[in-house]
Order: sequence, then C-alpha cells, then structure tokens
Amino acid sequence: MPSWFDLATDKKQRQQNVIPKEWLITPPPASTLNVIGIPETCGLLTPQELVITNEDVDGLLKKLASGEWTAVAVTTAFYKRAIIAQQLVNCLTEIFVERALARAAELDEAFKRTGKVVGPLHGLPISLKDQLCIKGLETTMGYVSWIGKYAEKNAVLVDILEECGAVPFVRTNVPQTLMWPETSNNIFGRTTNPHNRSLTSGGSSGGEGALVALRGSPMGVGSDIGGSVRIPSACCGVYGLRPSYGRVPYGGALNSLEGQDSILSVFGPITGSISGLKAFMEAVIKAKPWLKDPLAVRKKWDEDEYQLKDRDNGRKLCFAIMWDDGVCVPHPPITRALKRVQATLTNAGHNVITWYPIEHKRLGDLTRYIWEAGASEDFMVTASETGEPIISTMVPDSNEATVAPFRPKKGGLTAYQLWQFQKEKTDLRALYLQHWNSTVASTGTGRPVDAIICPAAPYPATPHGHFRYTNYTTVWNALDYTASIFPVTTVDPAIDVKQPRENFIDAFDKQVHEMYQPEVFRNAPVCLQVVGRTLDEEGVIAMTEIVDAALKTTNKRL
Amino acid sequence: MPSWFDLATDKKQRQQNVIPKEWLITPPPASTLNVIGIPETCGLLTPQELVITNEDVDGLLKKLASGEWTAVAVTTAFYKRAIIAQQLVNCLTEIFVERALARAAELDEAFKRTGKVVGPLHGLPISLKDQLCIKGLETTMGYVSWIGKYAEKNAVLVDILEECGAVPFVRTNVPQTLMWPETSNNIFGRTTNPHNRSLTSGGSSGGEGALVALRGSPMGVGSDIGGSVRIPSACCGVYGLRPSYGRVPYGGALNSLEGQDSILSVFGPITGSISGLKAFMEAVIKAKPWLKDPLAVRKKWDEDEYQLKDRDNGRKLCFAIMWDDGVCVPHPPITRALKRVQATLTNAGHNVITWYPIEHKRLGDLTRYIWEAGASEDFMVTASETGEPIISTMVPDSNEATVAPFRPKKGGLTAYQLWQFQKEKTDLRALYLQHWNSTVASTGTGRPVDAIICPAAPYPATPHGHFRYTNYTTVWNALDYTASIFPVTTVDPAIDVKQPRENFIDAFDKQVHEMYQPEVFRNAPVCLQVVGRTLDEEGVIAMTEIVDAALKTTNKRL
Repeated sequence: MPSWFDLATDKKQRQQNVIPKEWLITPPPASTLNVIGIPETCGLLTPQELVITNEDVDGLLKKLASGEWTAVAVTTAFYKRAIIAQQLVNCLTEIFVERALARAAELDEAFKRTGKVVGPLHGLPISLKDQLCIKGLETTMGYVSWIGKYAEKNAVLVDILEECGAVPFVRTNVPQTLMWPETSNNIFGRTTNPHNRSLTSGGSSGGEGALVALRGSPMGVGSDIGGSVRIPSACCGVYGLRPSYGRVPYGGALNSLEGQDSILSVFGPITGSISGLKAFMEAVIKAKPWLKDPLAVRKKWDEDEYQLKDRDNGRKLCFAIMWDDGVCVPHPPITRALKRVQATLTNAGHNVITWYPIEHKRLGDLTRYIWEAGASEDFMVTASETGEPIISTMVPDSNEATVAPFRPKKGGLTAYQLWQFQKEKTDLRALYLQHWNSTVASTGTGRPVDAIICPAAPYPATPHGHFRYTNYTTVWNALDYTASIFPVTTVDPAIDVKQPRENFIDAFDKQVHEMYQPEVFRNAPVCLQVVGRTLDEEGVIAMTEIVDAALKTTNKRL
Repeated sequence: MPSWFDLATDKKQRQQNVIPKEWLITPPPASTLNVIGIPETCGLLTPQELVITNEDVDGLLKKLASGEWTAVAVTTAFYKRAIIAQQLVNCLTEIFVERALARAAELDEAFKRTGKVVGPLHGLPISLKDQLCIKGLETTMGYVSWIGKYAEKNAVLVDILEECGAVPFVRTNVPQTLMWPETSNNIFGRTTNPHNRSLTSGGSSGGEGALVALRGSPMGVGSDIGGSVRIPSACCGVYGLRPSYGRVPYGGALNSLEGQDSILSVFGPITGSISGLKAFMEAVIKAKPWLKDPLAVRKKWDEDEYQLKDRDNGRKLCFAIMWDDGVCVPHPPITRALKRVQATLTNAGHNVITWYPIEHKRLGDLTRYIWEAGASEDFMVTASETGEPIISTMVPDSNEATVAPFRPKKGGLTAYQLWQFQKEKTDLRALYLQHWNSTVASTGTGRPVDAIICPAAPYPATPHGHFRYTNYTTVWNALDYTASIFPVTTVDPAIDVKQPRENFIDAFDKQVHEMYQPEVFRNAPVCLQVVGRTLDEEGVIAMTEIVDAALKTTNKRL
C-alpha cells in the first residue's frame, strides 16, 4: 500500500491534470498579497464573462430564466473564474468541468424545448464544500484516508439543487477533520485569503469563502457546526447564512463526529450577493427536503415571516448590538463596523439598543466538552487507515507545540458525563430564551428584540494559524439561533489605528488586543452577524436584507 | 433524616388527607376486576355530573364556550369522578381541588365579564402526568428522593394550557424512573386497569390512561419516549398521540435521562374523545411554544395538512397495515382488530396494502443501547438521596430474579461508543424513509403510503409485570414518526380463542404466543396505531379521525 504522502501527492496531481491548459494564468508572485482584482485583469475572461461573473444571484437567475444568458455560457464563465481563483488562493478540491457543462447543456436544451426553467435555480453554477457527495466522485473532506472512495449516490442536498436547476461545478477546500476555523489539509494544502494572502480564508468552509470572494462562484454551500459558514464568509467579505438544525438537508453528506446528536452541523449558503441567501433557502425548502432526509425539519417556506408580518412589516425594527461577548473585546475595525451599522439603522428609523451577552463563555466551554467527548477517537479512527498525521495546529511550520483551540488530546467522556453537559446546555438555552424575551421592556416596539447584531469574531481574518477564538459564532450554534454574515467595510490602517487600552477582562482579552497590528490586517474584510431565533431563517434573511440595503444607501450617500 | 419508607408513607398519607371525605365511596372488593362502570353506579355523581363527564371534548368546549356549563360545574364533576377513579385504580399523585376550583371560578368570572372565552380550552379540566411541574406543588415522578421538592414555577406546557383556559386539576401516577411500560413506584404503588384490575394500565403514563378511561378526566397529558403515551392509551382503550420531537414544549418539566439528546421524550394528549387530539394540539401549537421553550419547533399549526390538501383531501387514502413487526406475532384479538380496520377502510373507499417492516429489531436494540449508555448512573444518582431501591422488575412479589426489558445493569458506554449507535440509528432512519417513499409503486394513489396502521403491542394490557415488549411503539420513537392510538374493540374470550401455531419466528415469538389465554385478557381494550411521518401531527390526527369515523359508522351498521 502506498504511503499517505504518495496518495496525497497523486491526488493533488490528478486535480492539476483536469485543469484545462488554456485556463492557466501567469500567477502573481507570492509577495502580491491582494489578488482580488486579478480575475478582472489577467485577461482570461472575455468582457461578457466578466459581466456574467460580476452579476448578482438575482440578476443571474433572471437572465437565465429569460433566456438572455444560457446555462452553458454562465457555467463556462464561472468555471474559468474558479480556475483562476484556484491558481491564486488554492481553494478547490474536485474539479468536474465536463460533467457540469454537460448538465448546463441539458438545461439549455430543456429550456429551448419547453420555454420554461427546470427549477428556481435554473442554470446557476453552485460550488460545494468537500463533504457533499456527488455520485462517481471522490469526497476526501481533507482526509488522505478517504482518497479513492467514490460516492455511490448524491447527497440529498445535491439532488435537490440539481432538481432546482442548479449546476454543481466544483468542490472546495476544507481543513482536515472540519473542526477548525482555517483551511488546510494533507492533500490539498492551505487556502489563502484573496484580499490578503498572508491571512486565513477562515474555515472550515474556507475554500468556499475564498472562491466566492473572487466571484469564481455566485453561490456556494458551506457547513457550520461552530462558525464554519460564517467565519470564512466574514474573513473573505461575502454573505453567509447558518440556518438552524435540520432546515437544510444533511443526509448523504460526509461529516466529522457523526452520531453526535446534540450540536449539529448544518449546511448553508455562502454567496457574493445578498439575494443569494433567499434564493438558496427558498428553493431548497420548497423542494420539501423532509421527504428525502429524515433529519430535515418539516417546515414550509413561510412568506409571512419573510415579509416580517408580525414585526411591523419590517418598518420599525429593534436591533440589539452586542459590542463584545464578555470574553474578549473586538479589534478596532470591528467596533468601527458596529458603530457604522448602529448609525445607519438609527438613521433608517429603527431602534438600536445594546445586547448584553449572558453565559457566552460557559456555552462555548460546553460546546467544546460535547465535541471533545468522542472527537479524538473519531479523528484517529478516520486517519488510521493510511496513518496520515492528524494536524494538531494550523500554525505554518509549527513544531506542534502550540496548543490549539480544538484538538482534543484526552480520552473523551462517558455517555453519562456527556449527558450532564448536554443537560446544562439545554438549561442555558432556556435561560437565553428568557433573556431574549425580557428585552421587550426596552425595545420600544412592544416586541422583544427582533435581531442581534454582533461581530463574527474578535478580529478580521488573521494571519495563518492565529484564528483561535470562535465563540462569537459558536455560541449561536449551541443555542441553535439562525445567523447570517454581511460585509460592512475593510481594514484601513489609516483609520483603524491601534488604540491603547488600560483595562482588560483577563490575560486572554489582552492577548487578543495585542494581536491587532493595522498593517498586518490591511484590506481584510470586516463583516458582522445578524442573529435571530431558532428556525427563523425567513426573518433573519429579511432583516439582513434590510441592514444591507441601509448600509448600501448610506454608502451611496457618503 | 427519615428513611425512604417513612417519607413515602407520609407522602401517601398527605395525598389521602386532601380527598374530601364526602367523596369517598365504598370500594368494590378486590375480586371485582372490571370497574369501568362504577363511576356511573356508585351514586356519588349527580345525573348532571354524569352528563358532563360523559360528554366528549368537542361538546365540553362548545358548552363551556356558550356558557351552558360553567367551568366550576365541569371541574367539580370531573373532580369527583377522578376521586372515584383514584379509589378504584390508584391513578393519582397530586390532588389540588381548591386550586383548580379557584381557577375555574376565575374563568367563569372572566366569561361573565367579557362574554368571551379566555382561550380555546376554556374551562376544560386537564390532568397531567407527574412530571409537569406546577408552581408550589411537589413533583416526585415516582422517586421518594424528590418528595418535598416544590416547584418554583410552572412547566412551559402548564403555562400554555392555563393561557388556553384549561384547568389543571390532578396529576397522575408513573413508574419510578419513567422507563417502564407499567405504572408502579415506591410512593404511590401500582395503578391498575379499570377494565380488568388484574391487568396493567400500561406505562409510563399509566395513571393518565386509567383516569381517562374512567372519564375522571376528559383530557390528560402523558409523555412518550418509547411508547409511554401510547401503551397506556392502548391498554386502557382511549385515544393518544405521540407527536414528534419538540412539537409540544417540554421545558420546565422533570424527566429521566436528562441530557440524552438523541431519542427525546415528548408530551402528547391522552383523551377519551377523538376530538381531544386536535383540540389539544391546535391549542398548544397556536400558543407559539417556541417563544417559551428553546427545544419547541417553530412550526405553525398547518390547517392545509389537517385538511389533507396534498392527499386528495382525504377522499381516497392509502393505508398500509403492518400485521406483525417481524419479531413477534400479535395475539388473536389484535389481529382481529387489524382485520376489522382493513375491511372498514376498504369499504370506505380507501386503498389498504401491507406494510413490510424493516430493521425493527435493530432499531429497538439501538434505542435501548442509547438509553442504557448512561441510564443506570442516572437512576442511581437520583435515588441515592434517600437510598430508596431502584425497582428492577414490575413483577408483583418478585424476588427480582426476573430480567426486565429496561433496567440497565451495566456501567454504560463511552461517548464515542454512544455516537456510533446514534449514527447507525440515523442511517436506519434514512433507510426507512426510502422504504416509505418506495411504496409509491403499490399504493394506487400516486403517492407513497399515507399512514401505517399497526398494533400498539403484540398483546392487549397484560397481567401486571408481564408487559415486556415495547418495540411496536418504540420503533416509531427511534424514527421520530408521529403516531396515534385509537380503540377498536375489546377482548372477548368467546371470539378471541387461542389459535394453535406451528411455526414461530424464534423462542421469543413462541413465548409471546404462549402468554395468550383468553380468559386472562377478558375485557382488555384492543387499540391500534396510526403512524405518519415526522412532524406530520396535523395529517396523523386527520387520518385517525377518518379511521375512527369509519369504524364508528361500521359499528353502527352492524
């Protein structure tokens, strides 16, 4: 049997071989950190392909549905741009050009024959995180041990997206084990951030984040158990949605920690356009995933909730801003973004109050205890087939001495011990719900807070190996709250100067503070979260659209 | 500190003390097995109280809403009848007459003042399983160790029922630990079956089943993790519903195996009238329990699903009958009931095909492994406060040598081992869903099977200590399918003769067969289940109503 290293090398070579030679570009030198503009300037894309790939999801779907653009033309354009992205930030895993173009041609043929779209996502290329099995393709999920395992059928979500008329065309990079907020593994290596390649693209859906940011895909699917849709969305400056457990089907996809039934991973969209969030969720839910996946929640798309019927039709909402989580204070550009959103929403006629976090540290700790209960054994069993090393730190060239945030070393827990942590988590969910309800006294709308607005992390994308604190996202997984990511600004060292602080919560807070060096974070996107209640996807999408529109209006006025 | 025995004796005495002396009847001798008619004949109830307590839920709600009957009159009538039931079958735990009557008087006052009902369950007395905390009352759940623990607040469901205008008035008996299909504990002793007191009332909601069967309550709330609503409903000949996880709020209630997040206990109605199922579910769901309990599913009452809009409006359905589960063949009266339903539904114009069970034994085993993972420690930790013995068999006067179906003796599992069983269960859920979908080929309706009809157990209510096999109900908990219970007939030794069998699946099947002795089971109700998909409460209720109406029409014709 070949060594794990040989297996990985062969797989990577096979990936390289399927890239059409004529789509290779002259890559910029490694010293070029910001590569976000290179797809526009490298010369591979035609002017029409640039128009197509710069269009938002709503526009793409309209032009595809009207027949103005064919599925083949749109797929080809995004395909070429994805291959450019791959050469810039190493974001892809499986590349299946011919299959995708054949599917696009089928769609065009059907459209020509019937004059109608196949489904609500007709002709839209969609990239998929490297967990979503496609019949006949390998899914390695960053494990060398899974090289050579070809799927016998599609994941349920892949079937549904295809029924909706979408065109899956590439899969995207992940960290080995998925349980990491950056993206690197023993097969494909590391994905970098297109805004600044010395920074992480985030993880675990970091391939998606980087690809979508470069507009190499109009819409991708990531997964999120502790922030894995939201962290890369935030790091790369795009939109993302973490739905509640079961709203989007997970069946037939690969995963880590399978059988862990308490804090579930969920799939959600990562997209360059605000309209992509609704397009994805409405299409998937209207396909009735509960008839195909036993864990999918039988809950129809609720247009009334999307119209915010019970919330003054969205005219006067009350948002609560969480300035910090009580564990560590965010870096200056994050706080600047929060202030901008506060001013923008106030100007738009909404109420804005402060969100007081409760028990965030404990919720984060409980989440880690629950995952750690059996994670170490899970990772080892998976990796043992080839003996590939478990990557225990994401620090490049590390001697592995650095202790990482989620690499459980110990032997795990008994089931009874696990149950005690799970019980405590449920109790804290009840406490948090009461806390939310109690805000009715201070919103001025007669309702409790409509949504929380908070950082996605205490920092923008960090240098590789330094994204260590995920609790600004993970706490909402523990509570199963719906949460989206929207972009606000980017780090500008001229504005986002380092501000001295006298008082710190503790040594960790100080450490986070000291990480901030404006020049290091230059150009890093700054995104925030909109957080709503459990299974309130429709409401959260609508409120994210309201916030996003308000920000765009303000930006135009400025 | 007093011994556990003294604590239990004192608690039982306190219960006895709150029963109004004038409501004591002369109890029938122990040799009187069938006591179902005694409330009518004992002389305690006035003719009007008999009319009230014999009315169904729909009629009660209408007469209360029109002001024809007051809440005080209705509560008093059911109260008296509940106290009669207690003297016959020992079904109650907490008795709080004054509190309930005060609440009823408040409702009458509000109705008089406003001319309107307080809510959809205005004035309806509701009994509650002894897990549903009520502020200021003890909840022992069959544990001596919990005597003296007074609740600081209501369970969420109690709050919602009160908001809906219902009048909680008694709590009902359970087995110690809840994890048992019969009803006995060290405090209150054993609840018996009013149709035949030598038989079990079932469990764990056995107090509810017996009370509702005697019409001592028009509607009760039970809980169901493996059949605990359905088994007592079936044993006692009343209606019951096991909703899917989270459809009815569980927050603030006590429970066993807390923190076990994989196969969840759920609350559901147990009622003497078919109309009670919808009345309860619609009222609770319309109260938006997800705003009060983080585990309650945000899913509105779906009137279209109740109207079976996507299922030919219920005109021509396809039911699949599961004659046995592949593990043990039901007793003759159960099979007779299935045949009657088959003929009735066919006559009513529906299609009826056979349901082929798959993996039922493995699903039952996995369920037990998941519960056993930490159950032993859970029980021991709870009981250790007073040192009361864990009841390891329900056989009366047993020397404890008999091995019982769910009394885990061993040390439990590691979290990683638990995850492997949970993963396998999820895989089997996916397989079962495919199996269900595949029936589209044989239903003749263009849809997969609309509902399964199957036994609730291989036997009717058994002699005490002999209800050992719960997998006819438990398998649907593992799959999280919605399942109701409806009555069909009762055991008639003249018809339900013992039938010789030559071939047996295995020794266990033979043992179940040999248990059947017509005379022993005389008068035992025979009920069946209607089983639908996950979170299809509206559809299952509607289809149960269709089956029930067809049976009633047939019975009238005969």
